[in-house]
Amino acid sequence: MPETEKILFANEAFYRAFADQDFPAMDELWSQSAPVACIHPGWDVLTERDAIMESWRAIFSNPDQPPIRFGNALAHLYGPVAFVTCVEALADSFLVATNFFRGEDGAWKLVHHQASPLPGPPPSFEQESRPVRH
Amino acid sequence: MPETEKILFANEAFYRAFADQDFPAMDELWSQSAPVACIHPGWDVLTERDAIMESWRAIFSNPDQPPIRFGNALAHLYGPVAFVTCVEALADSFLVATNFFRGEDGAWKLVHHQASPLPGPPPSFEQESRPVRH
Repeated sequence: MPETEKILFANEAFYRAFADQDFPAMDELWSQSAPVACIHPGWDVLTERDAIMESWRAIFSNPDQPPIRFGNALAHLYGPVAFVTCVEALADSFLVATNFFRGEDGAWKLVHHQASPLPGPPPSFEQESRPVRH
Repeated sequence: MPETEKILFANEAFYRAFADQDFPAMDELWSQSAPVACIHPGWDVLTERDAIMESWRAIFSNPDQPPIRFGNALAHLYGPVAFVTCVEALADSFLVATNFFRGEDGAWKLVHHQASPLPGPPPSFEQESRPVRH
């Protein structure tokens, strides 16, 4: 399987964990051995792994958190690291995100996530339709 | 000089080019040989180098573009790639940004920039005060 496909599967796994509010899966996706960062919409940067995981717990426990979908995923590979840009859709809100991955023991682990609001859906938005493969 | 210092200098050079509306300096900072991407606040992702450079020309030619300052820069190094998170201040607006760099022939070149709006200055905001070294 080409490496970019593996990276896109890791990106899908991230959104599946997000959509399922699956904290253990989210925790498993983030690197344990490299520096990590996370920028949620409207939040300042988080740079401690514990604070990032706490933020996901808070998001997952928010009853008003709308379901998330994603699309337009595009992987950029730079040797041992890669990032994916994609569009996120939460109810009627759209965001554009970057997910930064690092290759670790054959798996791609998240080391950074940033999501920024968009004024509306980009004209090209196509929701991901293929099944997530774990 | 530690590699993280070189990366922070490249990040400073980016904001100096931005503040000076110096298109040749901005063009020089972006990789010519690797995939690139750019997410301006409220914009969809740009993934073609020409489109990214055109966006900087448009920003630099906008007479209403406020001067930019930055602070809270923090470098994260992953071998041949690194990213810097920092806070941007434009007049009374604050954003949080990630700048991704790739080591190329001894220089750190931009391969991605994303900036997201913040509701206000983070409590810890400290404007960078040391001089930019090119």
